[in-house]
Amino acid sequence: MSKKNNSDKLSIFALGGVGEIGKNMYVIQYANDIVVVDAGLKFPEEDMLGIDIVIPDISYLTENRDKVKGIVLTHGHEDHIGGLPYVLKHLNVPVYGTKLTLGLVENKLKEANLLGETKRVLIHADSEIKLGETLTATFFRTNHSIPDSVGVCIDTPEGSVVHTGDFKFDHTPVNNQYADLQRMAEIGSKGVLALLSDSTNAEKPGFTPSEKNVGVVLEDIFRKAEQRVVVATFASNVHRIQQVVNAAEETGRKVAVIGRSMVNVVSIASELGYLHVPEGMLIEPEEVNRMAADRVVVLCTGSQGEPMSALTRMARSTHRKVDILPGDTVIIAATPVPGNEKYIGRTIDELFRLGAEVIYSGSNSGVHVSGHGSQEELKLMLNLMKPQFFIPIHGEYRMQRKHALLAETVGVEPDNIFITDLGEVVEIQNGSARKAGKVTAGNVLIDGLGVGDVGNIVLRDRKLLSQDGILVVVVTLSKQNGSIVSGPDIISRGFVYVRESEGLLEESNRIVSSTLQKLMSENVNEWASLKTSVKDALGRFLYEQTRRRPMILPIIMEV
Amino acid sequence: MSKKNNSDKLSIFALGGVGEIGKNMYVIQYANDIVVVDAGLKFPEEDMLGIDIVIPDISYLTENRDKVKGIVLTHGHEDHIGGLPYVLKHLNVPVYGTKLTLGLVENKLKEANLLGETKRVLIHADSEIKLGETLTATFFRTNHSIPDSVGVCIDTPEGSVVHTGDFKFDHTPVNNQYADLQRMAEIGSKGVLALLSDSTNAEKPGFTPSEKNVGVVLEDIFRKAEQRVVVATFASNVHRIQQVVNAAEETGRKVAVIGRSMVNVVSIASELGYLHVPEGMLIEPEEVNRMAADRVVVLCTGSQGEPMSALTRMARSTHRKVDILPGDTVIIAATPVPGNEKYIGRTIDELFRLGAEVIYSGSNSGVHVSGHGSQEELKLMLNLMKPQFFIPIHGEYRMQRKHALLAETVGVEPDNIFITDLGEVVEIQNGSARKAGKVTAGNVLIDGLGVGDVGNIVLRDRKLLSQDGILVVVVTLSKQNGSIVSGPDIISRGFVYVRESEGLLEESNRIVSSTLQKLMSENVNEWASLKTSVKDALGRFLYEQTRRRPMILPIIMEV
Repeated sequence: MSKKNNSDKLSIFALGGVGEIGKNMYVIQYANDIVVVDAGLKFPEEDMLGIDIVIPDISYLTENRDKVKGIVLTHGHEDHIGGLPYVLKHLNVPVYGTKLTLGLVENKLKEANLLGETKRVLIHADSEIKLGETLTATFFRTNHSIPDSVGVCIDTPEGSVVHTGDFKFDHTPVNNQYADLQRMAEIGSKGVLALLSDSTNAEKPGFTPSEKNVGVVLEDIFRKAEQRVVVATFASNVHRIQQVVNAAEETGRKVAVIGRSMVNVVSIASELGYLHVPEGMLIEPEEVNRMAADRVVVLCTGSQGEPMSALTRMARSTHRKVDILPGDTVIIAATPVPGNEKYIGRTIDELFRLGAEVIYSGSNSGVHVSGHGSQEELKLMLNLMKPQFFIPIHGEYRMQRKHALLAETVGVEPDNIFITDLGEVVEIQNGSARKAGKVTAGNVLIDGLGVGDVGNIVLRDRKLLSQDGILVVVVTLSKQNGSIVSGPDIISRGFVYVRESEGLLEESNRIVSSTLQKLMSENVNEWASLKTSVKDALGRFLYEQTRRRPMILPIIMEV
Repeated sequence: MSKKNNSDKLSIFALGGVGEIGKNMYVIQYANDIVVVDAGLKFPEEDMLGIDIVIPDISYLTENRDKVKGIVLTHGHEDHIGGLPYVLKHLNVPVYGTKLTLGLVENKLKEANLLGETKRVLIHADSEIKLGETLTATFFRTNHSIPDSVGVCIDTPEGSVVHTGDFKFDHTPVNNQYADLQRMAEIGSKGVLALLSDSTNAEKPGFTPSEKNVGVVLEDIFRKAEQRVVVATFASNVHRIQQVVNAAEETGRKVAVIGRSMVNVVSIASELGYLHVPEGMLIEPEEVNRMAADRVVVLCTGSQGEPMSALTRMARSTHRKVDILPGDTVIIAATPVPGNEKYIGRTIDELFRLGAEVIYSGSNSGVHVSGHGSQEELKLMLNLMKPQFFIPIHGEYRMQRKHALLAETVGVEPDNIFITDLGEVVEIQNGSARKAGKVTAGNVLIDGLGVGDVGNIVLRDRKLLSQDGILVVVVTLSKQNGSIVSGPDIISRGFVYVRESEGLLEESNRIVSSTLQKLMSENVNEWASLKTSVKDALGRFLYEQTRRRPMILPIIMEV
């Protein structure tokens, strides 16, 4: 199918996942065929107040909906599939994924009432999928912190584009599903035009340890623990869950699974054959308190200190079914996602206060390893694929840049490396590549049921309100005789506590009154002027008195 | 002075600094003599919206003001002296500190107009200070990330209480001010009743490297850099600043100091002889752009990614005097304080985007070492002092606990170790110690000029407002005929953007109207009932429609 002197072009760009960790979504387009790799979500930045989740802006895809031939999923993590329910509402295209990935997706689509209308296509490591006239996708198995992860190779008339998905090289994988080095080498030896590769750990020297190392540590802790063991980890880490189950079996303990997403994943992964739980191994949460302490493992969510999670509730002694008792051992088998350090720290402190022994990654305990390859693994992938062009993806800018430097060290031409921003297009035609402008890309904020209805103005107001609160000033004026009929009444929320600031509020009242009376005596009576003057005078006074700038909302009524 | 069968008791407790990092303040009381060690501030937790800083609740001290004989300062960091201006307003007692510490304090008191009325007493490593009838303080020199740091030994009729201050053991200190091991050993051999020791790095195995290691790395980077070097670090780290100056001298560069607190510290430390800057070494910020790039070092604030700091402005290209140019080298010589990771990450990304080479601690670069001792140093301190009782201080609960375990390993009796909360009193009488209740202790929040006027209700409102904003509903009713005269008018701030949600707001209007009309037709007309019903009905509707819970503020007027 390959030909020279193409009049069509190959375009590659990210709608999510570059310059950020999260909401991964990559687009590969040739002529009238578009394939989308992944459709993830991201958790809000600290300045996105009140926002629940963030998804990619898919305007480009909806504007080109007839060209989109499908969404190919690399694995079942939220930052790769979590945006699907929103995307599929606007773009009804087939979804391709491996068994576990589709299992997790189906659960999600069911909740969003989209299961019936979405075409789902199961892929295997040796599937070959035709996407439109010009594109063909094949796959290769990788190691990651969830089973059934794959990389994608998309053959185009310009050459092959490889997207690694998230990966590490685990030479002793928990499920014996080895990364398919042979297949990768074969793709590389046929020639890779462009490689898109995971930059998450590009700053980390060396190799990421095998997940199996964690299993050894867990079993050792389970054996030594004289009372209950509680393990918190990411619900999606099926390998980790398997190792908890194995260690429990080895040490004669039963496992109680607690936390909605953990229960969910255990059930889906068991059903689909990715998690092997011996008959009779699982117990109900209610049974935990009734069993001998040294016979129990509690497997739960909350490894990030999330306020509503199972572990956080246990730490605060507000969990309905499990109390942490002195002598219990709690293992937090995860590292903090940046921004969560303080929450986790607080949970650890609370567990210690309850008398538990807490084992967490900060203490060099070996209870967690990353699912992403470090520098030596990234170089290995580069050398397996030997790409002509390289596009580091899946990372903050500094990680992309570090990954680019790694690519240079293994021999990729510096001019052939493209660090891109969201929407920035790398265009390849007749074997030469260049940056070719930008398509629409960015954040769509989801707050409750609202998708994209919270914009900069609303966020700015939330920020202001969060800092110094609001004062509502209510006044009724008489138009006829230019006087104040009632008020001013001042209502404070989040500014000062009224009972302790009576003097300040009384003086505020006087300032509002005198400002209005002065204006009316000068025959100024347009509402806009009156409101602005009240805002200015009161704002100035309050700033002088308190060095705070509450939002001021004057409500002026006329009778 | 020591005697057995004392009828008086020794009390030791923290008003700040245990169960937290920050606002250090420790109290040692015997009979009618109280000595306070340090008076620090803390930066607000992420749930203290709008708060600027946090200081200790000093009710106990103001209630016992006649007994307070003085405040002894261990060193000049903000978490040890930053609360002084607030404390001294309510408690005019002498302040004891070494030369640099008092220099920094005086600057602070001048700004607060408290310099004249505060008695300041300069102490040396060999000072002996009588505090009231029963207490005597002596000092020992320690190493820390600011010069002139000391530990304190307070002799009491019960025995000696040692407070280490913040410390590490740096065997090759930058200023050749060695930790006074001999003096510590001497104190230990005379017998220490109770040791209060710094727990910051109790979770870190091994030894903290010498500050001098950083100097070697800096000089190497300065030498290799072909253009300008920008170094951001903590303003108070005079050793680090000295090493930047030294490396600049060795490599033939001039230094521009930028950022208010950095300029401040450089001036005070130079004046007092703690920083040695060769004649003609400093240049004005304005000169940076005019000089050959490889002759310049910019020393600035912003190592924590603080939004208004010099480095952040440079990274965003909004600094008035210094632009970052491609090829510049930026060194971030600090580790992120927990909670700041994302801000620093963003600054690093922006600097990379400008084409700078960025060297930061995440990259194992050797440009930062901690000022606090690791486990081996903590054990060394314990073994030098050989205390009967041990109270781990200066740390989150998990650090205190780890420190307690370290103390056990070196032979302190487990029953003689007291992990305390804020205000929790350890009482020692006739050689035996016990926990003896709590004094008032906690956080005083400072917001602008307000000290303690923001409480839980205000913070809860700010939290609510920050999540989903506020709707103000204004209605005027006629009492006579039970009808709506004007409104309802609905004003939204931080909830939805009005122009994009007209339907929602129109429906909200209808719900408010019909709720009020129904109540009035039933002759319900107490304001409280009307308001509650409006809130409930509208809140329910909005939650159904949006899954959000904005604050609803009904304003009902009557004519």
